[in-house]
Amino acid sequence: MTIRYPNGKKYKPVVKTDSTLKKRTKQNNLSFSNRGKSLEDDLNDTNSYYLSMGIANIHKKPVPIQIVKVEYPSRSAAVIREGYFRTPSTTDYNGVWNGYYIDFEAKETENKTSFPLKNIHLHQINHMQSVIKQRGVAFFIIRFSTLNRDFLVPFSVVNEAWNVMEQGGRKSITLDTIETEGIEIPLSYTPRIDYLTALKTLLKIDSP
Amino acid sequence: MTIRYPNGKKYKPVVKTDSTLKKRTKQNNLSFSNRGKSLEDDLNDTNSYYLSMGIANIHKKPVPIQIVKVEYPSRSAAVIREGYFRTPSTTDYNGVWNGYYIDFEAKETENKTSFPLKNIHLHQINHMQSVIKQRGVAFFIIRFSTLNRDFLVPFSVVNEAWNVMEQGGRKSITLDTIETEGIEIPLSYTPRIDYLTALKTLLKIDSP
Repeated sequence: MTIRYPNGKKYKPVVKTDSTLKKRTKQNNLSFSNRGKSLEDDLNDTNSYYLSMGIANIHKKPVPIQIVKVEYPSRSAAVIREGYFRTPSTTDYNGVWNGYYIDFEAKETENKTSFPLKNIHLHQINHMQSVIKQRGVAFFIIRFSTLNRDFLVPFSVVNEAWNVMEQGGRKSITLDTIETEGIEIPLSYTPRIDYLTALKTLLKIDSP
Repeated sequence: MTIRYPNGKKYKPVVKTDSTLKKRTKQNNLSFSNRGKSLEDDLNDTNSYYLSMGIANIHKKPVPIQIVKVEYPSRSAAVIREGYFRTPSTTDYNGVWNGYYIDFEAKETENKTSFPLKNIHLHQINHMQSVIKQRGVAFFIIRFSTLNRDFLVPFSVVNEAWNVMEQGGRKSITLDTIETEGIEIPLSYTPRIDYLTALKTLLKIDSP
């Protein structure tokens, strides 16, 4: 397959939908420590840092697009003229670190006391169950944007909450549970969100 | 980020550029055993089989697209009206199998005696070097389409040939080398290209 690049077009990172833009503007007003950066931006910075330092090789997957119509203007790059967003069948981030297969999903909530499970999709749960079965490492990075707090939450915690919800129970995970069973990731400068250090703590706890 | 889906539009798998379509038509005429399937189609079928049987969780990454303009027609899905193909920074396939991080690139050649290295890009070499450093498993699946033969070729073999080329030497890997240092993958029905069985052979050889 021939990949062509934009000619003289300025690089722009991925898709910004209306809701992302709205959220980002809100964050600009709310919080100095976030400096207008979304969780996705922070994670991209972090992953670039890990890669350049030889610490890990973890990437965000591109958004899957169904391409219907492409034009080939003479002397410039191929232009997609009709395309649609498709459902991803996996989580957003994966890669390799120190022999471990790493797989995670990043979620933000403005809620202050719990993380609503409606932010998670069934295909993500199914995918992570399969990852665990293959002995990969699966987790969520959850940002409480109003509180300026980030957590690494093991998949097992989310999976348990999901099962409770499916049996008609609570539809969210309390901040209390996340504080107890997850690892808080302090926001820093380089890397921005050092989730691998949090993961180290978690894996040491898990493996005696 | 809001993901929206096409309304009433028929599902079409990913991008088919002119060159892919041309190659596919050629294959239709040339070869019965390929049955007009490209290597990518065969690998997608194989990965679906692995996933559904709980054997592995390996996916093709979506093609990265830079989205410039999106329209939101009322009562139907968001339509991308201007987008460009971007350079991937990784290989096309990755995932997890049996505790191993798996990372590979699939390439086809019509050549009958060697695999030209011009099919490989520097960013793929750099990415795989980093994967190996993180103790992942990296390889190429190379199809000699005219010969109807598929091989799993360890990254180390390609890396060595790449170094020779960079020092002004040979610009391809001979079929002979690939037969000796790679593992041939017999084409079958389910799964279509059982590369994990080939990989098992390879890993057994590598680890005494």
